[in-house]
Amino acid sequence: MTDTLRIIPLGGAGEVGKNMTVVEFEETAIAIDCGLMFPQSDMLGIDLVVPDISYLMEAPDYLKGIFFTHGHEDHIGALPYVLRQLQAPLYATRLTRGLIEVKLREARLLDATEIHTMAPGDRVQVGPFTVESFHLCHSIPDSVGLAIDTPHGLVVHTGEYKFDYTPVHGRLTDYAALAGYGRRGVLALLSDSTNAERPGYTPSERLVSETFERVFSRAKGRIIVSTFASNISRVQQVIDCALQHNRRIGVVGRSMVENVRMARKLGYLTATDEMFLRPEELETLPPSQVAIVCTGTQGEPTSALVRMANQEHRQVNIQQGDTVILSATPIPGNEELVHRTLDNLFRLGATVYYHRLLPVHVSGHASQEEQKMMISLTQPRYFIPAGGEYRHLVLHAQLGKELGIPEENIFVVENGQVIEFDDEGARLGERVGGGHVLIDGLGIGDVGEVVLRDRHLLSRDGFVVVVVALDEASEEIIEGPHIISRGFVYMRDAEDLIEEAKSLVIEALANGHRDTASALIRDTLAEFLYRRTRRRPMIFPVVLEV
Amino acid sequence: MTDTLRIIPLGGAGEVGKNMTVVEFEETAIAIDCGLMFPQSDMLGIDLVVPDISYLMEAPDYLKGIFFTHGHEDHIGALPYVLRQLQAPLYATRLTRGLIEVKLREARLLDATEIHTMAPGDRVQVGPFTVESFHLCHSIPDSVGLAIDTPHGLVVHTGEYKFDYTPVHGRLTDYAALAGYGRRGVLALLSDSTNAERPGYTPSERLVSETFERVFSRAKGRIIVSTFASNISRVQQVIDCALQHNRRIGVVGRSMVENVRMARKLGYLTATDEMFLRPEELETLPPSQVAIVCTGTQGEPTSALVRMANQEHRQVNIQQGDTVILSATPIPGNEELVHRTLDNLFRLGATVYYHRLLPVHVSGHASQEEQKMMISLTQPRYFIPAGGEYRHLVLHAQLGKELGIPEENIFVVENGQVIEFDDEGARLGERVGGGHVLIDGLGIGDVGEVVLRDRHLLSRDGFVVVVVALDEASEEIIEGPHIISRGFVYMRDAEDLIEEAKSLVIEALANGHRDTASALIRDTLAEFLYRRTRRRPMIFPVVLEV
Repeated sequence: MTDTLRIIPLGGAGEVGKNMTVVEFEETAIAIDCGLMFPQSDMLGIDLVVPDISYLMEAPDYLKGIFFTHGHEDHIGALPYVLRQLQAPLYATRLTRGLIEVKLREARLLDATEIHTMAPGDRVQVGPFTVESFHLCHSIPDSVGLAIDTPHGLVVHTGEYKFDYTPVHGRLTDYAALAGYGRRGVLALLSDSTNAERPGYTPSERLVSETFERVFSRAKGRIIVSTFASNISRVQQVIDCALQHNRRIGVVGRSMVENVRMARKLGYLTATDEMFLRPEELETLPPSQVAIVCTGTQGEPTSALVRMANQEHRQVNIQQGDTVILSATPIPGNEELVHRTLDNLFRLGATVYYHRLLPVHVSGHASQEEQKMMISLTQPRYFIPAGGEYRHLVLHAQLGKELGIPEENIFVVENGQVIEFDDEGARLGERVGGGHVLIDGLGIGDVGEVVLRDRHLLSRDGFVVVVVALDEASEEIIEGPHIISRGFVYMRDAEDLIEEAKSLVIEALANGHRDTASALIRDTLAEFLYRRTRRRPMIFPVVLEV
Repeated sequence: MTDTLRIIPLGGAGEVGKNMTVVEFEETAIAIDCGLMFPQSDMLGIDLVVPDISYLMEAPDYLKGIFFTHGHEDHIGALPYVLRQLQAPLYATRLTRGLIEVKLREARLLDATEIHTMAPGDRVQVGPFTVESFHLCHSIPDSVGLAIDTPHGLVVHTGEYKFDYTPVHGRLTDYAALAGYGRRGVLALLSDSTNAERPGYTPSERLVSETFERVFSRAKGRIIVSTFASNISRVQQVIDCALQHNRRIGVVGRSMVENVRMARKLGYLTATDEMFLRPEELETLPPSQVAIVCTGTQGEPTSALVRMANQEHRQVNIQQGDTVILSATPIPGNEELVHRTLDNLFRLGATVYYHRLLPVHVSGHASQEEQKMMISLTQPRYFIPAGGEYRHLVLHAQLGKELGIPEENIFVVENGQVIEFDDEGARLGERVGGGHVLIDGLGIGDVGEVVLRDRHLLSRDGFVVVVVALDEASEEIIEGPHIISRGFVYMRDAEDLIEEAKSLVIEALANGHRDTASALIRDTLAEFLYRRTRRRPMIFPVVLEV
């Protein structure tokens, strides 16, 4: 580890090098981002997924700073968990810092955390590293990439980006900075692979404004736009369009309200105070003068839009004449929930626009031609596709190859795979774990393979507990058997089955020895219940000797 | 019910009027299709979903025939369940009949079932109805729509279709029949709404052949094409391309083998015997001479492709040099499984083509311009969008309105909603249920709301059973408390928590009365466990008195 530079993507379920990346040299490490993932559908009962930082915990003093590329959850959301184990100063642009502060205040960690604002273009020295941030366009303002001067050369991490020539907030990607790095010579480029499946260019956010304009021109009743709470630019687009069409803005949903408040305070949302409706005005103003922004694009059951669609919202319920825009695409895995929400909105008679009908959303990630431009601007010696699922990395790597980067200089890796750089070049190092940790309630990491497997089994066929008390001396049954079962059969209609099961237990115990009573009960019932139902509930015998 | 014609979409979870539709007049009912649905992701542990036929069961003698539009699972798959409750002659085209027979043979119902072959153009008299079938293009050969002459006029049911001008099997949609119905006058049109979100025309199956041709020209190693087992046309496309490129065909996977055998027997697949590889040849022939067709496009864990991608297949395991085509799009809800499969294929070094990269699949359903053509050809007086989720029906209805059908003549309904026709016109009738029934193992319909809710709770936070034996006289604990728990915490690491829980139970029992012992235990533990873990396992106290 002496004079080797090490780059390690950490954390992620499915996606590689998205939520956290570590760069280290000798006894100094810096991290880029600290985000959380949303649980995949087979992570039953799991609330959140955060990066596994056990590698960093081996030498917690080495970590000298966490740098943030932008303020989305999957880049800042793991901070409340990570900062409880590991302290380090944070470096972020103003808006990103604002979003981090909202989060840390809620977690009561704000006072204990050292945070530095780092404007695009700022340089920070951390041990052997000089970190410079440069502005990039993404679907949230104040996004940056990072150029890290290391003893072995310049490492460029793009964060997440697209080359939007007409961004909502007006600020272009810093092409000059990227070209400058390319001229100086880039040792390694870590670049956003998310859209490596998409040919061509990702459309500008401007396209969404044009769609909003069309919809606002047509709509006669209320307009309800749902988007991610962190998508401050999208909120600005709604505000601009509302102003144009003499509508005032209602902000609905806790996270949306908080983010809008913070973004207004920091000057990332342009609107007069009068533009915003007070909660009570939501119901009193004529529908034609109201535009509402809220969350719920993913069909999340507790989100504002879903509650509106289920007629369960305190303030706003969908009615005939409403126009609803879902300004996002479903994240894979959320399609069923999104479709159900759409169907409910249609049932209530709303006019609904979503990504299949109109360009109400554009991706925040570079498509293939932009990815090629990024490689062409920076001219890296080594190329590390990052921030995508494995197939995206492979496809991104193919683009790199097409642009002339030698295959052996491209590293398609999994999370936790160390890539080492020294004077001889670069190579794969050890694997250091670096997958993910599941969070369930207050527990971090205690729900692993075993508990998840049990939840799977329980979710499929439920369980059966059999309790029986035997006389210690005579081995006769003196109480029971009692059967408790859930998730297996509808107990009220299964009395015969349960009675038969009890008889079998009694019979089995009469013929067996008490030492093997539990095994006897389990085997007897497993066979019987499977034969009768073709289901395999988990079976737990409890034999008491009294 | 005397001289009213009734049309009732039955069955479906999410989709309306897709899996089964009933047409009845006086004491004669006919059904169109009898398909199953795949469980939605919140139907935990459910194997299959079939239409709720309780309405038909009220007068089982009324049902005089089931007519089939095509042989896909969601149109024939519920037969083994429905025919156990309700007998009726089946009417199907040759290939559809073949697929039905495979299914009924497996269910040992074939001998007891009366099946009639009905070629496109054939007419069948059933009571007051004359049913004529007409050929339509879909993603399976031998698809038909049905024109039903009723005492109140002609009802046209399109089944599923697109207007493919260059279908693989060479047989065009019977435009003349459709125009003829229009000229005669159509009372009601039930038309496929699936793609009502899609503007323009659905591309021809020919496009897929062109893509296959490009991929086969490039590939040097084995080619593995995965598709639905029922997609006989797609298999023919692979065969044609393989023949062109001097490759022989391996058919892998039980359902694929069965369907291919049946389709060859009936003449729906054109290929010499020599084209097909014997299982042992799969491994001995040079890779450049092999093309394999298999299932697995939806990432189904037990499918051939997924087992190949996990290196767990008996005959074929993916290796560097293989080219894999996923010739389908993910059904909503399956995205995560499909992505995982893709990533695994990429990890093994295969070259993988899927819908995001190449047109390896086209939809089998009409897009908006075709839907408009269908309405224009048939000129229905009443229009019933069918075979889609609710939003699709609404969007399809909007197309109908644009084409001049009066709004009051368009029926967007849910499953089980009767639509009545008589000399006065048409109107909504009663709701007759007609949702779906869940099948889990051998049980049909016994898993309902209650069991599913319990499975949900169990899948989120597991359960805790507390068993304690009290002395009948003294109320003292003479055995226990024992705690059994799964899916809640990792028990090995939670000894302290469990011990503390036991102490709390003992304490609670010491202070309480035995009549309330169970409630005491439940409340005490619920509060304690939530406070300590923020999880809410299901808690079951068992108090024995001995």
